[in-house]
Amino acid sequence: MVNSRISPLIIGVDVGATKTTAALVDEQANILNLNRKSTPTESSKILVRNTIELIEEIFNVSKACVKNILGIGLGVAGLMDFQKGIVVFSPNLPLRNLPLRDIVHHHFNVPTFLDNDANVAAMGEKFFGVGREVSNLVCLTIGTGIGGGMIIDDRVYRGAGGSAAEIGHMVIDPDGPPCGCGNRGCLEAFASGTAIARRAREVVNEESIIFRLIRGKIEDISAEVVVHAARKGDSLAKRILREVGEALGVGVANVINIFNPEMIIIGGGMAEIEELLTTARAEISRRALAPNLKMVKIVGASLRTNAGVLGAAALVLYELGKLT
Amino acid sequence: MVNSRISPLIIGVDVGATKTTAALVDEQANILNLNRKSTPTESSKILVRNTIELIEEIFNVSKACVKNILGIGLGVAGLMDFQKGIVVFSPNLPLRNLPLRDIVHHHFNVPTFLDNDANVAAMGEKFFGVGREVSNLVCLTIGTGIGGGMIIDDRVYRGAGGSAAEIGHMVIDPDGPPCGCGNRGCLEAFASGTAIARRAREVVNEESIIFRLIRGKIEDISAEVVVHAARKGDSLAKRILREVGEALGVGVANVINIFNPEMIIIGGGMAEIEELLTTARAEISRRALAPNLKMVKIVGASLRTNAGVLGAAALVLYELGKLT
Repeated sequence: MVNSRISPLIIGVDVGATKTTAALVDEQANILNLNRKSTPTESSKILVRNTIELIEEIFNVSKACVKNILGIGLGVAGLMDFQKGIVVFSPNLPLRNLPLRDIVHHHFNVPTFLDNDANVAAMGEKFFGVGREVSNLVCLTIGTGIGGGMIIDDRVYRGAGGSAAEIGHMVIDPDGPPCGCGNRGCLEAFASGTAIARRAREVVNEESIIFRLIRGKIEDISAEVVVHAARKGDSLAKRILREVGEALGVGVANVINIFNPEMIIIGGGMAEIEELLTTARAEISRRALAPNLKMVKIVGASLRTNAGVLGAAALVLYELGKLT
Repeated sequence: MVNSRISPLIIGVDVGATKTTAALVDEQANILNLNRKSTPTESSKILVRNTIELIEEIFNVSKACVKNILGIGLGVAGLMDFQKGIVVFSPNLPLRNLPLRDIVHHHFNVPTFLDNDANVAAMGEKFFGVGREVSNLVCLTIGTGIGGGMIIDDRVYRGAGGSAAEIGHMVIDPDGPPCGCGNRGCLEAFASGTAIARRAREVVNEESIIFRLIRGKIEDISAEVVVHAARKGDSLAKRILREVGEALGVGVANVINIFNPEMIIIGGGMAEIEELLTTARAEISRRALAPNLKMVKIVGASLRTNAGVLGAAALVLYELGKLT
């Protein structure tokens, strides 16, 4: 009788480029326990061991019994094979064709799921965040790169092979700058943190506040420096942010025209730059089809610091059919 | 006993800009009877009467009994409100906020469905055509404009308000030519029949075979004239088709990156121009993400002349849950 009302719990794990976080989460998205460490990038073996240790600590510290755990969700940046549970490739982690899902599953013997960070972010917002009330949403995470996740008719859309929603790799100008993916003119090559920094390095001059902020060391220019200079009134920095905001607006308008979603959620570090979003909104109004524009809400992400682990927990609940 | 094995039949209706076609179709996509007339464009009243007469003739000529008819499907070019069965707007027909579905339903009293021609084309290919074996496909119809229809996990994706899949209105170059939708640089403004003709009018000179073919009457330039000139070796016409093919390739690569579909089906008059498709394929190979490219088949539409009525019949079967 005593244990009969123990609420099922989930372990959500966010394997990020710099930090790995594991958390014990209940079905109402309360975080009961959280554990964070640097992500070791020397080898996949060390990274896997670190991930397993973090999960083990959750079990130990919280005295959670394996019987109470519905499952473990893993969110990883990069290209996943969802069906097989394999990290195919990760741009910032030493993982290639690694069956991470099965490794974790064999260790703990509870249902385990693996998906990319952008899908996980979309699931987090849909099931625990600002997207709860809608059935069709697109979640854009704009940081170093641009990730996309789509919820279509209440279901995660992964595409034929699990690599749908690569909205960052939608070309918005065929002659635009080269992108990390090998293509050129992708949204990511115009509107990510990396793109802002690269553009500033190309056009900076000695008159600009940017130049003073980095004391002439061009390689020190980052998106943060550009934003800082813009807020100090630097016209070059303001122009860069305006151009980036326009590009972002073109990309979001395309998403609106193609998906006719109820909601677009913009998260990630770049989403905090109000100047970008203001310009993007004006560009969206100019470019999106009127009926589609009328019904879409464009909002900021609601799950911030803990978006990764909550999204990974939502992945487990979703895959187990606990959320619909 | 005699009537017990009568196969259910569907009436598929294609209301096009120049012709309206109604056909009696069985569940195996056999056309048992077909009726075609010019589409009257003087008024919505006359257009509606014409549509109803065509359907009535199907009943009369085929002696089909209303009891045998599962339903009537209507495919119309333009923006539809699927839920309400309303033609919101049609670029080439005198229809605006017209509850066409209910008008037809009240007249014949059989289940009636209305959708736009691009969705209907996608359903036709999915259920009766080349898309039968796949669950995720995008169907592009390239004619005067560019229409898009999407099948996602075996279901038609209409978006929040029924106007998803406006792939023709995806911007591929922010500074590109103006588009009929009010935006600029849309795929449709680069790669439709209209776009080919407009581009040729802008750049034609007296040396070009195009100029000779139209005897100097610039307004007579059409996409067909450009293709004809290109096939006679005209370098200007060949350049135009190459540029248009490249733009089409950028658009299709974007679709591949965003949807990770199993199949892209290209139909419509422009899809018959082999030169366009060859250039587009080369551009797609350069621009699509490798894993997504590897798994997508890019094919021509399989339902040609009768795509409209077969698609409209597929709409009925799909909505009645007879196809899954």
